Amino acid sequence: MNTFGSKWSFTSFGESHGAAIGGVLDGVPAGLTIDLNLIRTELDKRAGRTKHGLEQDLSKTQVRVSVRAKNEPDEVEWLSGVLNGVTLGTPIAFLIRNKDARPEDYEYLKHTYRVGHADKVYEQKYGIRDWRGGGRASARETAARVVAGCLAKQELAAKGVCINAHLIQVGAETDPSKFAETIAFYQREGDSIGGIVECRINGLPAGTGEPIFNKLQAELAFAVMSINACKGFEYGTGFAGVTQPGSAINHISGGISGGIADGTEIIFRCVFKPTPTTPKALAKVQSDDVQCTKVGRHDACVAVRAVPVVEAMTALALVQFL
Amino acid sequence: MNTFGSKWSFTSFGESHGAAIGGVLDGVPAGLTIDLNLIRTELDKRAGRTKHGLEQDLSKTQVRVSVRAKNEPDEVEWLSGVLNGVTLGTPIAFLIRNKDARPEDYEYLKHTYRVGHADKVYEQKYGIRDWRGGGRASARETAARVVAGCLAKQELAAKGVCINAHLIQVGAETDPSKFAETIAFYQREGDSIGGIVECRINGLPAGTGEPIFNKLQAELAFAVMSINACKGFEYGTGFAGVTQPGSAINHISGGISGGIADGTEIIFRCVFKPTPTTPKALAKVQSDDVQCTKVGRHDACVAVRAVPVVEAMTALALVQFL
Amino acid sequence: MNTFGSKWSFTSFGESHGAAIGGVLDGVPAGLTIDLNLIRTELDKRAGRTKHGLEQDLSKTQVRVSVRAKNEPDEVEWLSGVLNGVTLGTPIAFLIRNKDARPEDYEYLKHTYRVGHADKVYEQKYGIRDWRGGGRASARETAARVVAGCLAKQELAAKGVCINAHLIQVGAETDPSKFAETIAFYQREGDSIGGIVECRINGLPAGTGEPIFNKLQAELAFAVMSINACKGFEYGTGFAGVTQPGSAINHISGGISGGIADGTEIIFRCVFKPTPTTPKALAKVQSDDVQCTKVGRHDACVAVRAVPVVEAMTALALVQFL
Amino acid sequence: MNTFGSKWSFTSFGESHGAAIGGVLDGVPAGLTIDLNLIRTELDKRAGRTKHGLEQDLSKTQVRVSVRAKNEPDEVEWLSGVLNGVTLGTPIAFLIRNKDARPEDYEYLKHTYRVGHADKVYEQKYGIRDWRGGGRASARETAARVVAGCLAKQELAAKGVCINAHLIQVGAETDPSKFAETIAFYQREGDSIGGIVECRINGLPAGTGEPIFNKLQAELAFAVMSINACKGFEYGTGFAGVTQPGSAINHISGGISGGIADGTEIIFRCVFKPTPTTPKALAKVQSDDVQCTKVGRHDACVAVRAVPVVEAMTALALVQFL
Repeated sequence: MNTFGSKWSFTSFGESHGAAIGGVLDGVPAGLTIDLNLIRTELDKRAGRTKHGLEQDLSKTQVRVSVRAKNEPDEVEWLSGVLNGVTLGTPIAFLIRNKDARPEDYEYLKHTYRVGHADKVYEQKYGIRDWRGGGRASARETAARVVAGCLAKQELAAKGVCINAHLIQVGAETDPSKFAETIAFYQREGDSIGGIVECRINGLPAGTGEPIFNKLQAELAFAVMSINACKGFEYGTGFAGVTQPGSAINHISGGISGGIADGTEIIFRCVFKPTPTTPKALAKVQSDDVQCTKVGRHDACVAVRAVPVVEAMTALALVQFL
Repeated sequence: MNTFGSKWSFTSFGESHGAAIGGVLDGVPAGLTIDLNLIRTELDKRAGRTKHGLEQDLSKTQVRVSVRAKNEPDEVEWLSGVLNGVTLGTPIAFLIRNKDARPEDYEYLKHTYRVGHADKVYEQKYGIRDWRGGGRASARETAARVVAGCLAKQELAAKGVCINAHLIQVGAETDPSKFAETIAFYQREGDSIGGIVECRINGLPAGTGEPIFNKLQAELAFAVMSINACKGFEYGTGFAGVTQPGSAINHISGGISGGIADGTEIIFRCVFKPTPTTPKALAKVQSDDVQCTKVGRHDACVAVRAVPVVEAMTALALVQFL
Repeated sequence: MNTFGSKWSFTSFGESHGAAIGGVLDGVPAGLTIDLNLIRTELDKRAGRTKHGLEQDLSKTQVRVSVRAKNEPDEVEWLSGVLNGVTLGTPIAFLIRNKDARPEDYEYLKHTYRVGHADKVYEQKYGIRDWRGGGRASARETAARVVAGCLAKQELAAKGVCINAHLIQVGAETDPSKFAETIAFYQREGDSIGGIVECRINGLPAGTGEPIFNKLQAELAFAVMSINACKGFEYGTGFAGVTQPGSAINHISGGISGGIADGTEIIFRCVFKPTPTTPKALAKVQSDDVQCTKVGRHDACVAVRAVPVVEAMTALALVQFL
Repeated sequence: MNTFGSKWSFTSFGESHGAAIGGVLDGVPAGLTIDLNLIRTELDKRAGRTKHGLEQDLSKTQVRVSVRAKNEPDEVEWLSGVLNGVTLGTPIAFLIRNKDARPEDYEYLKHTYRVGHADKVYEQKYGIRDWRGGGRASARETAARVVAGCLAKQELAAKGVCINAHLIQVGAETDPSKFAETIAFYQREGDSIGGIVECRINGLPAGTGEPIFNKLQAELAFAVMSINACKGFEYGTGFAGVTQPGSAINHISGGISGGIADGTEIIFRCVFKPTPTTPKALAKVQSDDVQCTKVGRHDACVAVRAVPVVEAMTALALVQFL
């Protein structure tokens, strides 16, 4: 339900407009010195406060989905499992307060469903409406994943495993030097656009993975497809490989053979759809239970902020195997 | 490791050239009358003994990967959990004997790794070589998935959930009436080609799924990406959607919102790479530990036989939620 | 590791002398109004602040193990999963601050192992010494179990299931009206004594349980044996039944048959050893790595405070089946 | 449901009067040479074909519960995971045929519930009557546990861990030289009697176990309480320790401290009730849905045959930690 993994078991909690979001990470060995700078940097990337790999600073063009994000960094409070910055081997609980949680900002949503959001299916599922900002469906929940993912990355790095994700496509644009410009265009239009994130894993020992159901690629797909707005996952030759005959693409394994790492670089890609809650989109939609609501700010390309989350989920998936 | 799911828990066993393959399916309610005809049909599709949806009978053009498959149907032996064809609520164990398991056929592989197969990574992982046909990595293991999947399909059908997968692309060809011809071409060339399978799910109740890690799309991706040769998974607008702005593709959810089914048709696609073990491919490859070995028969498009496996894994993924 | 149950999944965190203890309870349905008074009462019982079932108020005779407990009640802070006192269906995270956590009080333990405590095995296991009060092994951790157990009890009560535990023996004494007197005697002696807790479950639907490994009695034993100081579990005729022939004890099933509830009252008992850290005990023990340390206050009969924990763990075990 | 453990995951299947019982053991490392003699010996003990530790051969005095057991040994058929007697690292599936399964022998039970058996609760649970000998509740299911337990024992022995269980009490009798005589008495009386089994674990590395829910004693209790007819579990000072003050019993830890092995011998005991299906017992019971049925043979002390099952379940519990 809200737990990922069994060796490093990560339980996420928190509604976007409740008191706090956070998590408990169980299974982390004792003696790991937590890299607070890494966590700070990754949380900033996730919140859209840094340019992370783009040619220009996106923080000027991009607008946060959330009214809470603003420019205040997320403050992580460590509740347990850590003493003087070093892990104890006991469960690591942490939280990030929703500082300016103001349910009244969302009072107007109480009787409307937000277009393209999961509000309606949630009510169908739970029989209760937590109108405070979409409850768990909010992108804010991914901040807890980033914190847990940073610990996993540290453990992996100590074993020589390196994870690097970056944006390789925005709309039809594949030239990274033009990404900021493309995003700025959609921002001005009151519109949004999708993006593709590529992730490269190096140093994973040959033999990592399981041969049947828990194939390495299946676990990576499971981890990445659980990120909001992700619509597809592929590795190695992926979908494009369908047109190439076996004689041509042989031995481009994407670093995985029979579900198990072969020791070479693993490359996968995932696609993020554009956010549906844009001024332009909303102007086009009307129905009995879908009201057009004003959108103050919007995120023109969520794939940008997905990059650190892809890395975090990749790390959490891989750390289960070590 | 070799178990899929927790509600309907399916444990698969068997090496391709051992005594038998099979499985145990735990969690099936009492009182389900097993549809043996459905199982027969699906196993035949998986073994390439029927044309299943293609315009011509592929059994003439396609050659089985396995020397065992021949034209004898797989015989399922039910060991437990069933009385007079009706489930008892206890674990259902079944096996399929490897009738003509002749390890000596594979004696020549004892000291070679098969090109593009997982032989080498397996030895790296397990430190032991089961040279009898690739051990668990063989496509034959999917027969057990198909049997278990048929029971899941029956349970789903009884609740109004219908799963239909079909081939939508072979190489660059998207016209189904030309698929057999395309495959025959690669067969003659001693080559192979990839394919894309589309799967449609109807009747899944709104509310099915979980909002965070166990999103419906993540569970489907996990299930499908565990099939041999699958290189990618996408749903809804998928990878192609990256070029469309949010204002255009809004509301094409692919039947899932926030990880939870919205009650409309769910559509996903997955891509299967061409088999690497072809006469043409092998002629091109030589290395110290990769010997060129004669390939008697080969499967020019494994995506054809993947169709019933995609349905089976989809059923096993969905039945966990009901 | 630190998670109990899969349907109602409870993850516990917190060191006794860290910032806080707490937990995350996942799987609780939406719409449950949390009974804060029940939680208050049960936490008070656990902390030894109420007499709970004894003929006299034990709070006069009993002394808390912990320097923290004092007379301040534990304050539960709800972080997520609850809105206006009603559950949302999302993970319920809560914490209890360790108000006067003063690591300096335990500075003297930094280089000594406490007699009869798990300090030494923990260091062997984790390779790190969290000298702050025994880390996770502290009885304080059970406060989080009590909070989670209260929610489980509420859910069970709504379905007609009632759990009642009480002390039935203190040392050799089986007359409840003499328990307080017996405990006071050991308190004055600077000694401690064991106790037996009996738990009765009524209203559990016939059919609850599983026939093989997850027998109802096995799950109850697992839950109860996880409580600190518990040395044994028995149900129905238990150990005493060994001397009675089958013809005599037939049909005294203890409410469970073949691992499954038969709809009648379930009765089990569990025994708690006396705390080893008493002035009298310590005076007798000396070794190189076990230093005699002054014990300011001690708990003469931990079985008293175990009663609400037994109920909590019973509730958490049973709620998994509903 | 029918799976025990997550590292060495053992799935049990089979009805006592179906085609076969058996199991799948997943997680066993490659390279273990299976000790078939050990399995033969332990299966014989479980079936009551050897005296195993008693002063006289109980096979003369004891009568098997099952019409199947007779004097034919159980034949284990290995389906997968083993090549030339050595494990492959893949799932090990095995079965034991129910050679003379004759459902007609049990035809008379079709419309009666057997006294003291789980027939009735099973029908309440599953809504279907598998009248063939009690379905899964039969003691025969424990043969599969014994096979899996033997593999676990071998792995443990290779790491220096030794498990020894033996009968320490039959009825009121605690002198082992008188056990056979005592059992023979109850056999002649058409009655039955309970027994206590003690199990000693040596060589378990200090640090084995988990501090909170998965305490070593909790996992052992869970494993042992899942055996048919087991009514109680205790370790260390157990229930008898309740009368001893803390100053007296200090440091008799039973080998476990805070849920974690301390490296010394671990001792636990468990009690087995007498079988309720005896001629003498049945003569006393009549009700509308409980018919008196003739019992040809009965087992006067099931604790005797429980000894190898206690060892097997102990091994399966411990192997999860290594």
